[in-house]
Amino acid sequence: MTTSAQHTWTTTPATADEWITRAREVATLLATDAVQRDRAGATPHAEVALLKDSGLVTLLGPVEHGGGGQDWTTAYRVIREVATGDGSVGQLIGYHYLWFWAARLVATPEQIAAVEEQATRDRWFFGGAVNPRDDDLLIVEDGDDLVYNGRKSFSTGGKVSDVTVLEGVLEGTEKHIFAIVPSQQDGIVFENDWDNLGQRLTESGGVRVEGVRVPWAQAAGYVDKEFTPKVYNTLNVPLIQLVFTNFYLGIAKGALAVAAAYTRDTTRPWPYAVDVKGAAVEEFHVLETYGGLQAKLWAAEALAERAAGLIEAINAHPDEVTERERGEAAVVIAAAKERAIETGLEIGTRIFEVTGARATANHVGLDIFWRNIRTHSLHDPVPHKRAEIGRYALLGEIPAPTWYT
Amino acid sequence: MTTSAQHTWTTTPATADEWITRAREVATLLATDAVQRDRAGATPHAEVALLKDSGLVTLLGPVEHGGGGQDWTTAYRVIREVATGDGSVGQLIGYHYLWFWAARLVATPEQIAAVEEQATRDRWFFGGAVNPRDDDLLIVEDGDDLVYNGRKSFSTGGKVSDVTVLEGVLEGTEKHIFAIVPSQQDGIVFENDWDNLGQRLTESGGVRVEGVRVPWAQAAGYVDKEFTPKVYNTLNVPLIQLVFTNFYLGIAKGALAVAAAYTRDTTRPWPYAVDVKGAAVEEFHVLETYGGLQAKLWAAEALAERAAGLIEAINAHPDEVTERERGEAAVVIAAAKERAIETGLEIGTRIFEVTGARATANHVGLDIFWRNIRTHSLHDPVPHKRAEIGRYALLGEIPAPTWYT
Amino acid sequence: MTTSAQHTWTTTPATADEWITRAREVATLLATDAVQRDRAGATPHAEVALLKDSGLVTLLGPVEHGGGGQDWTTAYRVIREVATGDGSVGQLIGYHYLWFWAARLVATPEQIAAVEEQATRDRWFFGGAVNPRDDDLLIVEDGDDLVYNGRKSFSTGGKVSDVTVLEGVLEGTEKHIFAIVPSQQDGIVFENDWDNLGQRLTESGGVRVEGVRVPWAQAAGYVDKEFTPKVYNTLNVPLIQLVFTNFYLGIAKGALAVAAAYTRDTTRPWPYAVDVKGAAVEEFHVLETYGGLQAKLWAAEALAERAAGLIEAINAHPDEVTERERGEAAVVIAAAKERAIETGLEIGTRIFEVTGARATANHVGLDIFWRNIRTHSLHDPVPHKRAEIGRYALLGEIPAPTWYT
Amino acid sequence: MTTSAQHTWTTTPATADEWITRAREVATLLATDAVQRDRAGATPHAEVALLKDSGLVTLLGPVEHGGGGQDWTTAYRVIREVATGDGSVGQLIGYHYLWFWAARLVATPEQIAAVEEQATRDRWFFGGAVNPRDDDLLIVEDGDDLVYNGRKSFSTGGKVSDVTVLEGVLEGTEKHIFAIVPSQQDGIVFENDWDNLGQRLTESGGVRVEGVRVPWAQAAGYVDKEFTPKVYNTLNVPLIQLVFTNFYLGIAKGALAVAAAYTRDTTRPWPYAVDVKGAAVEEFHVLETYGGLQAKLWAAEALAERAAGLIEAINAHPDEVTERERGEAAVVIAAAKERAIETGLEIGTRIFEVTGARATANHVGLDIFWRNIRTHSLHDPVPHKRAEIGRYALLGEIPAPTWYT
Repeated sequence: MTTSAQHTWTTTPATADEWITRAREVATLLATDAVQRDRAGATPHAEVALLKDSGLVTLLGPVEHGGGGQDWTTAYRVIREVATGDGSVGQLIGYHYLWFWAARLVATPEQIAAVEEQATRDRWFFGGAVNPRDDDLLIVEDGDDLVYNGRKSFSTGGKVSDVTVLEGVLEGTEKHIFAIVPSQQDGIVFENDWDNLGQRLTESGGVRVEGVRVPWAQAAGYVDKEFTPKVYNTLNVPLIQLVFTNFYLGIAKGALAVAAAYTRDTTRPWPYAVDVKGAAVEEFHVLETYGGLQAKLWAAEALAERAAGLIEAINAHPDEVTERERGEAAVVIAAAKERAIETGLEIGTRIFEVTGARATANHVGLDIFWRNIRTHSLHDPVPHKRAEIGRYALLGEIPAPTWYT
Repeated sequence: MTTSAQHTWTTTPATADEWITRAREVATLLATDAVQRDRAGATPHAEVALLKDSGLVTLLGPVEHGGGGQDWTTAYRVIREVATGDGSVGQLIGYHYLWFWAARLVATPEQIAAVEEQATRDRWFFGGAVNPRDDDLLIVEDGDDLVYNGRKSFSTGGKVSDVTVLEGVLEGTEKHIFAIVPSQQDGIVFENDWDNLGQRLTESGGVRVEGVRVPWAQAAGYVDKEFTPKVYNTLNVPLIQLVFTNFYLGIAKGALAVAAAYTRDTTRPWPYAVDVKGAAVEEFHVLETYGGLQAKLWAAEALAERAAGLIEAINAHPDEVTERERGEAAVVIAAAKERAIETGLEIGTRIFEVTGARATANHVGLDIFWRNIRTHSLHDPVPHKRAEIGRYALLGEIPAPTWYT
Repeated sequence: MTTSAQHTWTTTPATADEWITRAREVATLLATDAVQRDRAGATPHAEVALLKDSGLVTLLGPVEHGGGGQDWTTAYRVIREVATGDGSVGQLIGYHYLWFWAARLVATPEQIAAVEEQATRDRWFFGGAVNPRDDDLLIVEDGDDLVYNGRKSFSTGGKVSDVTVLEGVLEGTEKHIFAIVPSQQDGIVFENDWDNLGQRLTESGGVRVEGVRVPWAQAAGYVDKEFTPKVYNTLNVPLIQLVFTNFYLGIAKGALAVAAAYTRDTTRPWPYAVDVKGAAVEEFHVLETYGGLQAKLWAAEALAERAAGLIEAINAHPDEVTERERGEAAVVIAAAKERAIETGLEIGTRIFEVTGARATANHVGLDIFWRNIRTHSLHDPVPHKRAEIGRYALLGEIPAPTWYT
Repeated sequence: MTTSAQHTWTTTPATADEWITRAREVATLLATDAVQRDRAGATPHAEVALLKDSGLVTLLGPVEHGGGGQDWTTAYRVIREVATGDGSVGQLIGYHYLWFWAARLVATPEQIAAVEEQATRDRWFFGGAVNPRDDDLLIVEDGDDLVYNGRKSFSTGGKVSDVTVLEGVLEGTEKHIFAIVPSQQDGIVFENDWDNLGQRLTESGGVRVEGVRVPWAQAAGYVDKEFTPKVYNTLNVPLIQLVFTNFYLGIAKGALAVAAAYTRDTTRPWPYAVDVKGAAVEEFHVLETYGGLQAKLWAAEALAERAAGLIEAINAHPDEVTERERGEAAVVIAAAKERAIETGLEIGTRIFEVTGARATANHVGLDIFWRNIRTHSLHDPVPHKRAEIGRYALLGEIPAPTWYT
């Protein structure tokens, strides 16, 4: 990718709208060669550099340290915009925002201040090694240090990250301990084994953690080796599930835009059409298909916006969040995710029907959207999400906090 | 209906939230015998009395004359709430709001002030006789009066209304003239021929207009017998299409609520279930079905809320509305309507699958929801709405203002 | 219903094709006033008389006694045809065929011969009181007689039947005993409580069985008070599930035919159509909708035909049927049923979109199709049928014989 | 591909069932490395050799010359079976059968006999260069020869074929002339430009025809340079559309089989399942999803079988086929194709939901099914097919013969 070089931003956006505009500029750059970069499958160094150059990596960072000081509503919109241009990069920035926020979720006020200052000043790009379906990393104490060992199957960001969030269990206890560690160290071995159907530029392969040392003082949220849990600690799952939702929506929006351009510019009218002849864009089924897909996408986006509002309400009083409040947000987020996935898969499939047979040529690359959504949307099973929403609709019950609900 | 008598409100709600609560109270009353009243098919005098007693009819009226002074965002939510209890009454109050607003759309400032004062003080219930697929009413001048003659196939509100909005064309001209006339007069003959599958209590039958006289001074918007058009005149169609959307959504919401109560209280577990036995509410397909339907409904509601925001933005500067602004709102409203209809029909059909065979007994009445949405949602063809949205998504074009777009 | 009187058949069809033609003639008569009879809800005496006059009741009876001597393939097609004209009557004749066949399933050769001779000569119309979700009828021995007592919630045919099939359990044993008894006797009390959304003319209400006596000699299949089971005894469930499938298909076919006639004759073109104007039948969405529905219906019909072939293969060697053979037939029948239901519900809903708003007038009666399919298709939960098919597709396992699989 | 070498057949199947078994053996061989061969994208020489070695290429050839003497019903089933193992090879054999049959459609009896003898004895593999959306090839007379020139965008089989069917128009006339020519000659230049999303091993790229000479005597169906048309000449389109249908169905069937094996062997249970835990194959949504997909696939297959019966009926009297008979077959085939496509796309997408996130790894290759169906199913627009079926359902009209109907 050479597109980053084409653009150097000299200002930091000051308002949410300006940040969205910035994200759109980034997306436009990414879109120019998204298919080619997907095919090449190179490590996304240039893409992460673009996220840094554009300032997007510090969107959530404190203004006094050069960050954007924005809220999650804006972060979600930024994720969505970036993903319209490149779904992989939408995922990278989305996961980054979650890990950037990890300190807020579990750390002490002092830790939060320190992490956010350094992350913002140094424009850290965050990765995370916490896939919950693998065994926990094992932590052993060694003097004042904690030493992490183990393996995780998936670690988005991986070797393009500056720091990695680890999570493990202290040997012989039930203590789960998060810590932020430099990604570039001998004890962190990225396995380079992410070779999947979609979201190919996310460096989501496995990682081995071999004797990574963390001072007890950096054990997030621990004071005198003890952690006092609160509901807000468990907001990571709703936050990331809505991150997913937004990059799915961005991918779907990008799909419609790319397809529409192809239909307008290239698709030939059907010579045997019974309704109108002469221009593909006037055929009824073409218009109706675009309209039906657009309606579904707008509805899913509107629900994602509503869900973001619930997150915002929770973030307004993190120390007093109730389980009910968290649970109701989680259910709405589950619904937004379900709608985004179903709509995105349909868009990813149907766009071919309004672009035509020649749009299957590999140089066109219209398959990237279906591949990207199909791949990541399997993160956890949608039917179980529907059942979770149904339990709320039918019985008024909220899901217990787990790694997936 | 005797439910109205059970409740006498002594206060007028002061905030939007209080109005929503009031609407919910009305809906709760209506829901108690909605099926029985639907079966009886009596003229909805008591229902309109309830709308008056509760104050909902003057929601949009000026505060200084005793009205609620609320905006359309609240009006739409009120329509939705009322429709959860009774789809017919949701339609009645929705059409009423449009006709209440008709003066704002086309009349002079003096006419607006006069109409809103009188309508609010006297708690007028509005009907309208303007179905555009019939021939226009014919207007002839007679001295200082205009005399309307003709017939309209559909006239929601009809004989339960206090006033009726007429629209006709002045003989020998292209002048369309709206006027508000008393419904109870010899020249207005309601044909009592509304006998349709759903929305049975809306008095939507035909009306004959036979020599109804209107002073020129009450010809809405006319000054010296001339009318100066502006874009805002054509907002009636987006406004009413979003009215439709909201009572569809309310009906669908009511369907889910009634079905869920039945599933919880009455539905027997399936004895041959392979997953869980013992309680219908624990069967996976029951939970998944409710969840899937709820997710779609939330998405459609969220889009309707977004659409209401566009209406609100237009209402903030009615004299400067551009065609583009109106057109973009119309497209989003079309999308919200499409989503509400598709979702509502699915909910109206699927609720039986999570309530079971015995829920088809007529005394249960679960069919009312499908009947209500199926009937009104044919107002104008959804595929053409989709094509209209598609034209915007594909070509960026907005629909020309017509009676349906 | 007076239509039966309009037609007197003087010949008995000789071939399968002639029987189908006869069924079609019956359907045509029924269709003329199906909606009016549905609304009236009278006991279907005339309808059963029509089934007798036309000879359809003895389709499966021995030729030597005046029956048609036809196989189930033809019976299924006859059910489907009759249901195109009237879903209720399709159900009546379908259940009749199952009960007519009950002797073949469980009785001794001598009993079969006796029943079939008498049923054919006397043109018995069969009902059945065996709903498995109620408690079993209780049988006590009294000398050489068995005496049945109990209640069943549903008993299609009920008081319009000549004979009723009972099923009960002999007190203190696990012996299930079928018997055919006259419907018109003091001990059989039809409760006249069938008042449901659809299939209204099927007399499917409850029945009380109070001291009905059956000689041991008529206990179906019992020799010296013992019954030797074989797989073929359990074919009743696949047989009846495919009966359901075929009357659903017939209802759906009737829906398309009635709607198409309305679209051709009555539906007005959409004046704002962007594609073609001037005739509703030329609008693209109208053609596409009919085509999509027709394609689904043909596919479901073809699968029902394949399923009938599996039944035929089993009927070719009833004494040697294996559990596997039965189970594989049951799975394909489940699939045919699932397709028929989903397609039928969609057709019952979508036909309004190609006939238009005025087609919701109650005198048109297009809702009868959705009501009929929606009501009966809840007989047992479709999701569990899908799971049963899935178990076969995924694991190669067949369902164990139960009352629903 | 080295799999062909693993199997040498020494007998020629004698019955239709044996041919199906042979096709299944071929499919099993192909399935072992279908994904790897798809990724490699090599010219399918080994695959065509396998079709020859197995005898499948001469399935339709005369028995006396060593062919199978089978009908199209069997050919369609063979196509379907082969496609379960490899969609590309299913397309290759399917197109081959059409071109093998081209003589029957248009040639004189003597030409037919000669072609079929030689094609069977020499095990010709046929390609064709007749894409109708390109300009016709231009034919000029040169003495007793016809000389073809021009270009076609798509030519399935291409350079792996022994002979190619050409179609052109004689200069200055309206005479369309088919001819079979050797593929390996200077005048036939395959452009090697097929690089599309799916069906990657079909050699479907462009072809230039540069001065290819054909003696007038080999102009198919021409006698004294004149051609007498009959309806049967136009059966090529229904024949090939049903070829498409069958390889789509085969691909979908293969998808379900491969996914089911993965679910059984590899998919992990969902640890947070609310229904059953411990085995993915017992989760309700997994069973229900497989069942729903299987039901749709069986229905589509059954309709394809019905359609094959209509082709067979036409082939029983090729000289007396009426336009109506051809048209009705074409409509049913259109419906079968529509069902196969919609079902195939859904299966290609949904299989991931029952195999899980790790099944998106590229070495698993589950995406091949969606890619294959998505690519070829755009051959001509499905909405127009639905409109064609709708025109028949609504108006009883059959499509006029064109290159697509």
